[in-house]
Amino acid sequence: MRTLNVSLGARSYDIHIGPGLLQQPELYLRQIRGSRAFIITNEIVAPLYLAPLKAALASAGVQADALVLPDGESQKNQGSLSAIYDKMLSARCDRTITVIALGGGVIGDMAGFAAATYQRGVPFIQIPTTLLSQVDSSVGGKTGINHPLGKNMIGAFWQPKMVIADTDTLRTLPDRELSAGLAEVIKYGLIRDLALLELIESRMPALLQRDPDALTFAIERSCTNKADVVAGDEFETAEHGGRALLNLGHTFGHAIEAAAGYGNWLHGEAVAAGTVMAAKLSQRLGWLSDEDVARVTNLFSAARLPVKGLTMVPERYLELMAHDKKVRDGRLRLVLLKRIGEAITDDSASRADILEAIGGCCA
Amino acid sequence: MRTLNVSLGARSYDIHIGPGLLQQPELYLRQIRGSRAFIITNEIVAPLYLAPLKAALASAGVQADALVLPDGESQKNQGSLSAIYDKMLSARCDRTITVIALGGGVIGDMAGFAAATYQRGVPFIQIPTTLLSQVDSSVGGKTGINHPLGKNMIGAFWQPKMVIADTDTLRTLPDRELSAGLAEVIKYGLIRDLALLELIESRMPALLQRDPDALTFAIERSCTNKADVVAGDEFETAEHGGRALLNLGHTFGHAIEAAAGYGNWLHGEAVAAGTVMAAKLSQRLGWLSDEDVARVTNLFSAARLPVKGLTMVPERYLELMAHDKKVRDGRLRLVLLKRIGEAITDDSASRADILEAIGGCCA
Repeated sequence: MRTLNVSLGARSYDIHIGPGLLQQPELYLRQIRGSRAFIITNEIVAPLYLAPLKAALASAGVQADALVLPDGESQKNQGSLSAIYDKMLSARCDRTITVIALGGGVIGDMAGFAAATYQRGVPFIQIPTTLLSQVDSSVGGKTGINHPLGKNMIGAFWQPKMVIADTDTLRTLPDRELSAGLAEVIKYGLIRDLALLELIESRMPALLQRDPDALTFAIERSCTNKADVVAGDEFETAEHGGRALLNLGHTFGHAIEAAAGYGNWLHGEAVAAGTVMAAKLSQRLGWLSDEDVARVTNLFSAARLPVKGLTMVPERYLELMAHDKKVRDGRLRLVLLKRIGEAITDDSASRADILEAIGGCCA
Repeated sequence: MRTLNVSLGARSYDIHIGPGLLQQPELYLRQIRGSRAFIITNEIVAPLYLAPLKAALASAGVQADALVLPDGESQKNQGSLSAIYDKMLSARCDRTITVIALGGGVIGDMAGFAAATYQRGVPFIQIPTTLLSQVDSSVGGKTGINHPLGKNMIGAFWQPKMVIADTDTLRTLPDRELSAGLAEVIKYGLIRDLALLELIESRMPALLQRDPDALTFAIERSCTNKADVVAGDEFETAEHGGRALLNLGHTFGHAIEAAAGYGNWLHGEAVAAGTVMAAKLSQRLGWLSDEDVARVTNLFSAARLPVKGLTMVPERYLELMAHDKKVRDGRLRLVLLKRIGEAITDDSASRADILEAIGGCCA
């Protein structure tokens, strides 16, 4: 087991990474104060991992209720959130309850937001079961739900007490979701970790074959990068850089997800295509060479990810991007690459340049 | 103008108290960073104070949208919250927006929770327009909405950037609401401020006649007491004492509010009757004398507040109290009076004693 500490003062917490961790009662003994837990999971994950989790909790003296929600990004809404509140209140959960998220990013975001807002906040443990959620949404404390007018528009910052990334759960992950997770791993390399990027390039076949060592390294290094960034900018208030850099490709990607209907493109797939757009724009601004852009594109292709966005006119992309939270006082702020391994936030790109960069990647 | 600072580290803020403050642009200039504000108010308050507030904001260079909700505790629900999110998103409010609550506790709680959860949290200014909200809900950062299964069950801690308690707004307050506000002022005296209690006893006629000096003193002293308590226990995590002491009479009172239907008893009215129950229970435990209980009862009577609860069997009270957040690991924790001017949290009272104390005040 590898353990990282995310350093956030009174809100610091550990991320444990390794095989078989979900079933280790001593991890729960350490972090659950009361005698009850409330597990939130979905109908894909529940048949695989709910019984072993409940058994481990029982061994730790913790009695657990569970709510099993339908699967999918389309479920990350007010209706599911209300179902969580209703069940927790009916079960008379009080403020000593610990909420446990067992599933991917959708479950983690919703369960975390429910924990943040149930009786003004209760403790929360993340057990991410996808590569994407292990390297991304389980670190950083962002929780929330979607709104018909935009993704993640309602939410809170709420740090977990502990994250358990059990690499055994990746054995049952569909290929397409494995690739989507790799998009975020590649992102950490592109924005701040050239050594990680080189390792991904050389070990891509092993990662795609789910080699446990390669995956453990990728998860640990990704979480370390994210934890470093989050520790320096917990509430995303930095004027330049900071947490915003984690959004490389995300503003373009959100436009794809919104236009396709949430859930039709996986988040990581949209980020891959969005990152290629960001790379092309960085090239137009004179920061990346042709070879750099080809390197980015080849890496995503090798990970079996899309390198072109949904086909629509570039102006429509811009419209959808204007709904993104990265708009400040009406100006579009984008994360771009100063070079491979170094990202910056930028609002100097002209509308024409942005449209050209998009146009080159969506037809 | 009197100004108090609530000392909460990075989340510290000022409370300004005095006449005419709502219309002073310089207060807004100091606290609003962006160029836009979103005002949340209700249909009682809007005709009185929305136009002057908008004018003051415009003088400060801030353009404000507003949402006017129906009045009443019954509106403090998911439906109103969704209406706020919908309007803010339709108006394309981004993360530089400042939310302003203009109204009583219901508006403050809902607007604060909307601010806490809109795009994971935006700045928030409180302009409480009732005595209750000026002395209670505007200090401490508690925000939230009710759920059909319990009051304030969904919420967050979210501190305002500034509170403006404009005493001129109390001129239009109905008598019954003035009295309800006095219940909380009396509470501060009972739990920790004997000098305030004696002043209220001697100046009750002036308070009921809305004497500006008497009110300003009562508001400032109440806020000081609350701010002191909150600074020592921001997230209500103290095992003994701490913020919980502010709930004197509230657990009994919540049972009255729940049984009567939220909004039929004013919160302060339920707290008054609930505090008499707490005083009687404190007497049964040997801490208060007959004279002490009579002093508490007389004070609420003088403030034109009820000293008996809703008529129902004491067992029903207990059932409703078990839904309250003050239950920890299944045990009912009550705030009781060790003596007049000193409250404690206690879970030693027997079921029989609690039932007897309730029975003496609800028939």
